Amino acid sequence: MNNYNIHYLNHDRDKEIQTRIDQMTKPPGALGELEVLATQLARIQGTDELNIKRPVMMVFAADHGIAAHGVSIAPQAVTRQMVQNFIAGGAAINVFCRHNGWELEVVDAGILEPLDGEEAEGVTVRRLGAGTRAFHEAQAMTQSQMQQGFEWAKELVDKHYQQGSNVIAFGEMGIGNTSSAAAIMSAMMDLDVSVCVGRGTGIDDSSLELKKKLIAQAVALHKPNMNNALDILTCVGGFEVVQITGAILAAAERGMLVVIDGFIASAAAMVAVSINAASRDYMVFAHESSEQGHQLMLRLLDAKPLLRLGLRLGEGTGAALALPLIRAAADFYNEMASFETAKVTDVSGKE
Amino acid sequence: MNNYNIHYLNHDRDKEIQTRIDQMTKPPGALGELEVLATQLARIQGTDELNIKRPVMMVFAADHGIAAHGVSIAPQAVTRQMVQNFIAGGAAINVFCRHNGWELEVVDAGILEPLDGEEAEGVTVRRLGAGTRAFHEAQAMTQSQMQQGFEWAKELVDKHYQQGSNVIAFGEMGIGNTSSAAAIMSAMMDLDVSVCVGRGTGIDDSSLELKKKLIAQAVALHKPNMNNALDILTCVGGFEVVQITGAILAAAERGMLVVIDGFIASAAAMVAVSINAASRDYMVFAHESSEQGHQLMLRLLDAKPLLRLGLRLGEGTGAALALPLIRAAADFYNEMASFETAKVTDVSGKE
Repeated sequence: MNNYNIHYLNHDRDKEIQTRIDQMTKPPGALGELEVLATQLARIQGTDELNIKRPVMMVFAADHGIAAHGVSIAPQAVTRQMVQNFIAGGAAINVFCRHNGWELEVVDAGILEPLDGEEAEGVTVRRLGAGTRAFHEAQAMTQSQMQQGFEWAKELVDKHYQQGSNVIAFGEMGIGNTSSAAAIMSAMMDLDVSVCVGRGTGIDDSSLELKKKLIAQAVALHKPNMNNALDILTCVGGFEVVQITGAILAAAERGMLVVIDGFIASAAAMVAVSINAASRDYMVFAHESSEQGHQLMLRLLDAKPLLRLGLRLGEGTGAALALPLIRAAADFYNEMASFETAKVTDVSGKE
Repeated sequence: MNNYNIHYLNHDRDKEIQTRIDQMTKPPGALGELEVLATQLARIQGTDELNIKRPVMMVFAADHGIAAHGVSIAPQAVTRQMVQNFIAGGAAINVFCRHNGWELEVVDAGILEPLDGEEAEGVTVRRLGAGTRAFHEAQAMTQSQMQQGFEWAKELVDKHYQQGSNVIAFGEMGIGNTSSAAAIMSAMMDLDVSVCVGRGTGIDDSSLELKKKLIAQAVALHKPNMNNALDILTCVGGFEVVQITGAILAAAERGMLVVIDGFIASAAAMVAVSINAASRDYMVFAHESSEQGHQLMLRLLDAKPLLRLGLRLGEGTGAALALPLIRAAADFYNEMASFETAKVTDVSGKE
């Protein structure tokens, strides 16, 4: 899993890129975060014209043993029901993908019970099992399940790359997966569980206390066996988290822009960076969620998200909504007039 | 100018709207600010299906006497040059309007020297004068100029309304106009100039001190004559600020969604609310700019902007970039499946 051939972005053209942006008809830096984003895109793509081609949203769904222990407002059955909803086109992520130009792929990474009949035809089946084991009692998965997840994710991402996509995002659905993300964060960063755990989609105080207790128990249980990022995924990860981590690394290897959604996807991003630090160069962070721990996680990743809309839904919704801003960064870079061509007095040196 | 017939939004359907949103396949409140926005749109439009029809971006350009006194990084000539750039399609606002589906109208509200020849054909001419007087020395404009601005703005907005638009935004171009906005804010809210004045598009420390001094001088000079919002506009406003204020009120009267851009547009919004408080119900705030004072202004307006991208360009760019989020609010409200139709376990009562 360490054999990703990911290149740190080349900064040789930085001066040229900055000059181009500064010569556009606006005060220096006046497009704020869009200038940062355009610069990152220009480094990634290496071309004079930036392109957003066939953006793909992959939503990975999986179940979590821990969810049977009272850490979520929704019963585990909701994971499968929501996958059916994705297939039928009725979920938030369907709406946002439709209107923002994302191609949506739904992956069953290991929900409790697979879809059947016609529904099964709408889903990509990459099941690592029928949900993970409850990680406060046992390892979430085996090492070979974890490895299989990385391999499958790479194949799926490569398929989209071969079909011409250069922007990819990863969403998730899995009742209980904020527990997994919080446990990963705590283990990865050696942080107290209490700063990593939040209310997920809206649990009450007593469920929150229980959630903290079980996650602390899990982190303590597995501590002797969690020596690196892959161990952490095996012990407290989820099938969707594993595949998202693998997909991030595979996409970075292909030089795609990787749009990171909220808390769960950021936990996967954190693991990906730990496996291969160069992958960070390809990430753009879409949304700062309301989930406690996400702000801290973003700081640790040195990430400034594009949106803060108070979303706490997952599914990739934050990433889906960020695409128009990513396009806007490419658009201004491609299309704005320079002081010279527009015959506007150059104010770029006057800051 | 007080004869706007603006209705406070009707809250009779609030329970129905909230129930509809809560019955969608997501945890309650999980779409954050988009749920707030959908509720506002549903109140404004009063229909089961929300519609974003022919969104119009009106960019008002004008010059400011104060700009000849060293309060900006750019010379006054840049206002006219940028209007030419708007006509040619090379500015940031052109790019963002093109790609986000805004119809753009550029209004010469009173730049120093009007456009001529072919260029003049691309601009709507509503000149209140050849720039305002330097307001630290004299009233920026006469009362009749101010009144004319309100009348013209109403006519222009009504034209777009008649053509089927139900979403409108107002941008601006005017070297020196952050000085006018800061003076308006200080006078309206009886705030010390120092908390209202910022660096505009990027002035240095000594220019900032000068800017503060001149604005404080202006506010002191006109204090005896600034008894209401219209007086304040007359004394320290700008031709574009006056027309934007009138346009906001006219659009609210027509029941259009009014998308408020950054610092200058927010100052106009503040004046509009003071003239007719019901206008606030129709406003959505697009972007929190980097300009000092804007955060405070947004708090005073009880506004939570959709975006915080560090933009400090004006032109309506923040508003232009917010449209995809406004559409997303309408889209999820129109298209998401309910727990019942999607056969997903209802978690709406479990928060």
